[in-house]
Order: sequence, then C-alpha cells, then structure tokens
Amino acid sequence: MRDEEQRRIGFTSSKRSSPERNEFDLIRSVRQRADSQVPPAKHRPHHASLLQGIGDDGAVIKQQSGRETVITTDLLVEDIDFRRDSTPAALLGHKALAVSLSDLAAMGARPRWSLLALGIPQDLWESEFVDQFYQGFFSLAERYDVRLIGGDVSRTPEKVVIDSIALGECVAERSVCRSGAHPGDLLYVTGSLGAAAAGLRLIERGARVGLAHADEPEWKLVQELLLRQLCPEPRVGWGLVLGEERLASALIDISDGLSSDLNHLCRESNVGALVHANLLPVDAPVADLCGRRALDPLLLALHGGEDFELLFTVGPENAARLPRKVDGVPITCIGEIKAGTAGVKISEGSRVWELDPQGWQHFGE
Amino acid sequence: MRDEEQRRIGFTSSKRSSPERNEFDLIRSVRQRADSQVPPAKHRPHHASLLQGIGDDGAVIKQQSGRETVITTDLLVEDIDFRRDSTPAALLGHKALAVSLSDLAAMGARPRWSLLALGIPQDLWESEFVDQFYQGFFSLAERYDVRLIGGDVSRTPEKVVIDSIALGECVAERSVCRSGAHPGDLLYVTGSLGAAAAGLRLIERGARVGLAHADEPEWKLVQELLLRQLCPEPRVGWGLVLGEERLASALIDISDGLSSDLNHLCRESNVGALVHANLLPVDAPVADLCGRRALDPLLLALHGGEDFELLFTVGPENAARLPRKVDGVPITCIGEIKAGTAGVKISEGSRVWELDPQGWQHFGE
Repeated sequence: MRDEEQRRIGFTSSKRSSPERNEFDLIRSVRQRADSQVPPAKHRPHHASLLQGIGDDGAVIKQQSGRETVITTDLLVEDIDFRRDSTPAALLGHKALAVSLSDLAAMGARPRWSLLALGIPQDLWESEFVDQFYQGFFSLAERYDVRLIGGDVSRTPEKVVIDSIALGECVAERSVCRSGAHPGDLLYVTGSLGAAAAGLRLIERGARVGLAHADEPEWKLVQELLLRQLCPEPRVGWGLVLGEERLASALIDISDGLSSDLNHLCRESNVGALVHANLLPVDAPVADLCGRRALDPLLLALHGGEDFELLFTVGPENAARLPRKVDGVPITCIGEIKAGTAGVKISEGSRVWELDPQGWQHFGE
Repeated sequence: MRDEEQRRIGFTSSKRSSPERNEFDLIRSVRQRADSQVPPAKHRPHHASLLQGIGDDGAVIKQQSGRETVITTDLLVEDIDFRRDSTPAALLGHKALAVSLSDLAAMGARPRWSLLALGIPQDLWESEFVDQFYQGFFSLAERYDVRLIGGDVSRTPEKVVIDSIALGECVAERSVCRSGAHPGDLLYVTGSLGAAAAGLRLIERGARVGLAHADEPEWKLVQELLLRQLCPEPRVGWGLVLGEERLASALIDISDGLSSDLNHLCRESNVGALVHANLLPVDAPVADLCGRRALDPLLLALHGGEDFELLFTVGPENAARLPRKVDGVPITCIGEIKAGTAGVKISEGSRVWELDPQGWQHFGE
C-alpha cells in the first residue's frame, strides 16, 4: 500500500542500488578533487582561512582585518555565449573560470575561491562532458591556486548553463574600481586586441579546434585564433601588480569590447578619453588574417568582445613605475583620459570621431 | 565603407538612440533600487563594510577579524525547478532569494549580501516579467536587510534560468555545519512538513495562484499550499538563534526532503538516527487535504522537498535553552541521533524501517 501510494504521487523508489551516477555522486567526486587540489594548509597559509568547503549548505571563510573580499559572477548560456558543437567541454570548463578570474584581475584582486553552478541536460549527463568540463576547470584553477568551495548541479531541459562565481582578496584599499580615472591619466591595455572576435567569426564560418585544412600556414593561424576565443588567458598577474603596487587609477577588463568597456570606465569616472587608432595593439594573426581577406582589423580590435585583456588608467607620475611585462604579457599606451565634456573619442590620422560603444550586448538591438 | 564593413561582420550600429531597454539600462535601474535599499551606512554599521556594489567588475566587502563569511549558490532552471505558467514572476523573485537565505540559515549565518545571475529569453525581456521578478526579490531582501551587490544578465534561447548567490556572516566559530551531530543528541525540525510538496502536486493537477474554484473552503486551503511551494519563508531567525546561542550541534535545511537531508546530515556526522513518525509535524492543511483524498500525508512529510524548514540536532544539555518559538515559528523534537552503526531509521508504532533518501534528485533515477 505504501509503495503503491509512493509511485502514485510521483516519488521515485530508493536509488541506492542504481548503477547510474546521480548528482550526489558527482558532488562527492568533485569534492574529492577539490580537497586534493591543495597541499596541507600550513604550506599555504591563506588556505587556512577556508573553514568549510564543498559538502554543506554553504562554504565558510574566515575574515581578517586589513583585507577586502572581491566577488563576481558570470553566467554562460549555451547558444548565446557558446555553442556546444564548436566548444570542447574542457575548454568550456577553462573559460567558465577564466572569465571570472578576469573580473577579479580587473579589480586588482588575488583569486582565491570559486563556486560553480552547472545546469546540464540528461543526455550530456551520461556522456564524458561533465568530466571533461571539470578537467578544464581544475586545470586552470590549480594554475592560480584557486580552490572550488561550493556550487550547485541541476538538470536542464535542453541547454547547458553555467554560473561561475569567483572570490578574491586584496589588501585593504588596494582594490581598483572603474571610477578612479582623472583627466591627464594615461590609458593602457594589456596584450593584444581582436583575436577573440576573429576566432568567433572563424567558428561561425565553420572552423573547429583540431580540424585541419589543406592550407597549412593558415591552419595554424586559425587554430591560434580559435583558442583565443575558446580558451582565454585571464590577466591575473597584471591585475595583482596594478592593484598591489597602486599603479592603476581605474581598471576594467575587456569583455564586451574596447569601445563599450572604455565607455563604461569613462561613465563611472565622469571623464572622457581620446584613443589613438595607430597605437592599438592589434593582434598580429588578426592583422595577417584580415589582410588576406580585405577586412579591417581595427574594427575587431575596437569592438570585438572577449579579449579579456585589462584596460586601465595610470597617473602620469606613476607611468615610470609600470613594468614592461608581467608573465610575459606586455602593455601598450593607447591614449589618455580627458575631461568629461570631451566625450570618448578616437583619432585616426587627422580624423577624430566619437568612439560609441558598439561591443556585445544581449538585448535592445 | 566602415559602416558597410561593420554591418558585414555583424556588429550592430550605435544603440544610443534606441528606444528599447538594453541590459545596461536594466543594470542601472536595478543598481538605483539597490542603492536606495538601505539608509546611510552610519545608521546600520554593517553596511559600512560594503565598499563597492553593483557597477564594477566585482563587489568589494571589507573583512573584519573575528567574523566568518558564509557563501552559497542555488541554480533555478525553468521546467525543472519551476514552471513559468504556474509561477508568477514576483513569487519567482521571492523564491530565488528565499532558497539561498535558507542555506545561510542552515549555516547559522546572518544574511548580508546577494548576487543574482539572470538569464531570460527575448520575449520575456519585453514583458513585465523582469520588473515583477525584481519586485519580489527586493521585497524579501528588504525584509531581511539583504543588499544586492552584483550579478549578471544574459539572454537565453528559450528558458529562464536564475543563479542566486547569497553571502552571510557569523561571529567566528559560530557557523553550524552538518557534521557536528553526536549520538544522544535530540533531533528537531522547525515549522511543519509536507506543504510545499502538496502545493507542487496541486500545481501539477492544474491549481493556480489566485484562481478560484466553486468550493470555497477547499479553495483557501489550496491557495495556502500553493504559496508554501511558490513563496517559501526561509527560517532566518531560527538559523541565527541556533548559531549565535551555540544551540545546534548540526544543522541543515530541508530542500531535497526530510529523508534525503537527514541522510546527508548523518553521513557528514558519521552517525545514525531514529525518527518517530508520530512526532512529525505534518502540516495541518496537508493532513486535511490528504484526509479528503485518501492520501498518506506522512509520505509528503518524509520525502517531499522544498519545505525549507531547518533540521537540527541539539545536545541534551542544551535542550532546555531552546526557545519555544522564533518569529512565531515553533519547533518539534522528532527523534534522536544514534551511533553510525544504527543506520537512519523511522519507527511507526511497533514497526521500525530504514529511512532511505527518497527526496528530489536531478539525475540517476
């Protein structure tokens, strides 16, 4: 009677004997991996501040005077932010963490902890997708000594969805906001621009990671650009230097595109800016590829999103203290901050025009 | 030429003049609402620790020695965790926050801050859904003095998805984990059980919030049960009392169902438990409704998820210190903790059987 009733109102019978993995099994295996991520706390003192990781209703972190916690979240939705047919699961796991580490870098924070909310459809649950995804995630996490301390796992009707949450720390008053730029500050960008957007265009035209074409030199170029889109490198080292050394007056990462993110920075700081087009560090493979196809690489560099480079301002008195490279990544001065009345502009030769935000947006086109 | 090129490679032209709302407009309006949420920091000292809220790459919170941060995340997926046709958007906004506040209560933490990642399809963007959703969210947030400090907004192909992140604080060493139960501890539950599951069954049979039926007394009963499913009340007050007064040895919230969550608690504590069926506080409207329909209310109370009551253990020496009610919510002693070898069992009259976890799970049925 009780069993029949159970079935009728929709409860499933005990799954203890089920050979299939349920989400609690996954959480256990991810927890084991997370617990093995780091050596005993005494070797890395900051890990002593994690009091409870995966396995409870919440994670618990000890606070310490003289520090600030920075927290950020990024939602990645299948068929909007990525396509499953062109994104190997391991690279997706990497990118899910990378975008949040980029946000922490853009605050000048040292990455510490991560939480991951993962929604996947039933068919993927039974594939290698989940293991590959976590493989990519942990590979990047371990590189930056980031510990997974929580998350959630849910089924979805059809599409993959990921919410990546990252927590970092700064010494008190060393976090860097978008709002600190002043007229006269110099404007810099790390690395190079346009490669992620070029990689996306190539994917849209059918290029795939690991898929070779007859034309060998072009194939290597294409692969490089694909990885810039699918496997971005967060500028963690630069973020730390700019924050801890009090070098940057304002800092943002280029996720929507230089034109959009510069406008965000200028709005928050109540300033204008002038960018010099000829100074922009257009990615060399992008320039090469665009040259072969009569495209304008400047547009990719200005408006292409997801480069995950850092865009920052530096008071002229601090410019001499800037290192030339951090972790092998150079920086380029691309312009200067002006008064708010000057607007956000770009000069190319003798022409000057408004640099309107034309990067990625989800709604309102 | 540049404009033509722009269109060809898929960049949209400037949207400054667009009459439609884009996500940056939404973020601005949500930020204004969040900024107006609280009086100046001097009136509520803990708000002084928020150094940067919405509007940058991450939120920044000042740390303070002698405190712990608790963080939790919950993913809500349309057609898995809720159905849009039966869930008014305002109630969804309430529930998104409520489930995370329940997790904080289950750690004994005081809720402080929230981040919200929201993915919605284009058609909903242009409806009242978003405003209604935030209305419900802020209404609950303000009741518990929780400040929205960040999040993300994304388009989705079709379904709504929400990731709700909440941060709370405890005095050092007052957070309560699942792992602290000892044989001999008493087992308690707040409030009553089974109503949320009964509400879900009613929704599956066509009942809707605000939809009246001819049979007036039953209608009110049905509405009450629907709200227990769609608009749960997190036991914030009880969580604080159990943590701050050092009353609970172990604590968990009932999200998957009593049978599943008790098994989680026992596994983490390496203990067993004995529940007495006749002590379970079956929700009165559930008992009433089940009586009319010849259903067994005990099954709903044992295995029905989403009650968001707290399940906790108390050393016998502390039982006399327990308040009878907090915020009007009573507690009930439903059994006791046993040695791990005793297993997790339930007694009903002279019968004793294994209380296997039979609550909600996403995968592996």
